[in-house]
Amino acid sequence: MTAQESRCGHPADSASPTVQNLGEFGLIDRIRNLFPQSPSSVVVGIGDDVAVLRTTSGRLLLATCDCQIEGVHFTLPTVPGRVLGRRAAAVNLSDMAAVGGTPLWALVSLMAPERTEVALVEEIYRGFGETLSRFGAALVGGNTARHPERLVVDVTLLGEVDPDRVILRSGARPGDLIVVTGTLGGSRAGLDCLKGDVSGVDETVRTAAIQRHWEPEPRLREGWILAASGWVHAMIDVSDGLMGDLGHLCRASGVGAVLYADALPVDPACEAIAQAADQDPLEWALYGGEDYELLAAVDPGGFPEIREALEDAGGAPCRVIGRVVATEEGLRCLRPDGTVFAGPHGAWDHFQKEGKNPSG
Amino acid sequence: MTAQESRCGHPADSASPTVQNLGEFGLIDRIRNLFPQSPSSVVVGIGDDVAVLRTTSGRLLLATCDCQIEGVHFTLPTVPGRVLGRRAAAVNLSDMAAVGGTPLWALVSLMAPERTEVALVEEIYRGFGETLSRFGAALVGGNTARHPERLVVDVTLLGEVDPDRVILRSGARPGDLIVVTGTLGGSRAGLDCLKGDVSGVDETVRTAAIQRHWEPEPRLREGWILAASGWVHAMIDVSDGLMGDLGHLCRASGVGAVLYADALPVDPACEAIAQAADQDPLEWALYGGEDYELLAAVDPGGFPEIREALEDAGGAPCRVIGRVVATEEGLRCLRPDGTVFAGPHGAWDHFQKEGKNPSG
Repeated sequence: MTAQESRCGHPADSASPTVQNLGEFGLIDRIRNLFPQSPSSVVVGIGDDVAVLRTTSGRLLLATCDCQIEGVHFTLPTVPGRVLGRRAAAVNLSDMAAVGGTPLWALVSLMAPERTEVALVEEIYRGFGETLSRFGAALVGGNTARHPERLVVDVTLLGEVDPDRVILRSGARPGDLIVVTGTLGGSRAGLDCLKGDVSGVDETVRTAAIQRHWEPEPRLREGWILAASGWVHAMIDVSDGLMGDLGHLCRASGVGAVLYADALPVDPACEAIAQAADQDPLEWALYGGEDYELLAAVDPGGFPEIREALEDAGGAPCRVIGRVVATEEGLRCLRPDGTVFAGPHGAWDHFQKEGKNPSG
Repeated sequence: MTAQESRCGHPADSASPTVQNLGEFGLIDRIRNLFPQSPSSVVVGIGDDVAVLRTTSGRLLLATCDCQIEGVHFTLPTVPGRVLGRRAAAVNLSDMAAVGGTPLWALVSLMAPERTEVALVEEIYRGFGETLSRFGAALVGGNTARHPERLVVDVTLLGEVDPDRVILRSGARPGDLIVVTGTLGGSRAGLDCLKGDVSGVDETVRTAAIQRHWEPEPRLREGWILAASGWVHAMIDVSDGLMGDLGHLCRASGVGAVLYADALPVDPACEAIAQAADQDPLEWALYGGEDYELLAAVDPGGFPEIREALEDAGGAPCRVIGRVVATEEGLRCLRPDGTVFAGPHGAWDHFQKEGKNPSG
């Protein structure tokens, strides 16, 4: 094995691989393997975005965490503190939405250099509280610690869901429709704008894409409607990229999936910016990540009802983008002519795709 | 105001103070002030080590978080991964012990550079799981993210407690005895050994102090016994230092306290190492921090019963070290001759006491 292979490959038997060798999901598998048994209170444990826990109340407790690291997820002062706080709340609320849950309480673990201005910290918490309270949740505690060089906002969000309303990743069945809310690729386009890679784009479009990147709208209302409909078999939020998250859902459900390229709701800003950057907007929609839309496997009989319910509630529209197939058929995205769209990238991986991280 | 004052002082009216200006507890006050109202489900919220939350089950949900940052709380490879994992669990379990709670579920947010060896990560999780499972709790999820230069292990621990068993910081009354479990100052002595500041100390003593620093024993059993006794009015764990945590308890309860210097259970290793380092062991016991013992305000009538119950259960012994007084009397530690022991340091503060951080 060459040094290059060792750094970028997945050596199964290397004496001491690094987390980059293994990648985020390989690492999570290793961690899960260390804990082969869970207490009976754990409905969904290690490896999922949300832990689902049985309590004595009969309701299920939900717990999720996600962090924003300066220089990895954001740079200062590019993003205002208030927006950073909102984003830290939104990405966690999105995980809650994906199981049909109700967010209740949040803890923030703040790490900051001594030189950090208190005003910035206050703005972060203000923004965090604003987004939480829009969805009925509240900050209830956390921790503060000195970090030598970076600001880190690590959030744990707790919520609840009725056992007959919870939607997991694992229930998709062949024949289900694959449905997604809102649009895709907008966050990736915003990231390109932040990096300064794009020129010749209308300012309104640019602003919309950046807004899409920094302030994703958690689809909580949509999650409740989907979960309550009784027609949704599996659900996940699109954080790692459509193909990546669909892959997680398929693996958990033991199924495959076919997507129709011409059915994907590509964000208009993504279309414009990708073209200006001489990139394929479809690729950004499939692999870009951080759109925080909901991706669901839906019983075909229930789709019209779901679409109407979302419309009636003024929620994000949803669209059929593919269907669930047998696991042997794998995971593909087909162009209208029947050829397979083969993007050069895989799903977002925290330890392997440094080039896709924001640095703008 | 000079530049020096601006960096080290507490300027109340500075236009843009830093978190170091304000200090950890000043910062937490600011954050708390941003959220003047809490939902009725929040029994104890921002500013405490543990959030206490009302659920539909009738039991209270407990949530606490605490992080270990490379270069701040530990250095590699000085501390083995397994021990680091155990410590990350123990410091959170200690917060749970302080309210008389039962730990149930933990989430770990791991941040790591790409070059981190998977074997190290596995050792951290192994150690973490070992300590959790000793107390009946389990790892149920979390997050992994790339960190450019440091390993960070940020833990959220969830637990439960019966409403009639929960002990808060805020119930101490004048006349209560101040009781502490185990010994004090050992962790601070271990830190000095790790820094290499100490010579001429017996190797056994040195090892005991370092063990005391890296592997604090969460006093969960002791916490349950104390909470169940019905004689404990307020409790906290000693993480910021005895004087610091007693200060938190006194402020929350609206009382003062007098400690008796000759009654403090100074750790034997602390005695030996402080003397070798030409330091005052009493100062380390009062201000050292990270001993993770329990500090309780106890009804005088119940102390003999509590002492016996701890003894019967094979728990850490407890000792009376002072008494609760009126708030006007403040917080003092008296020497046997009646003079006030005045240590040069305050409580541990993450943003102001960099000199006391581990670097060994």
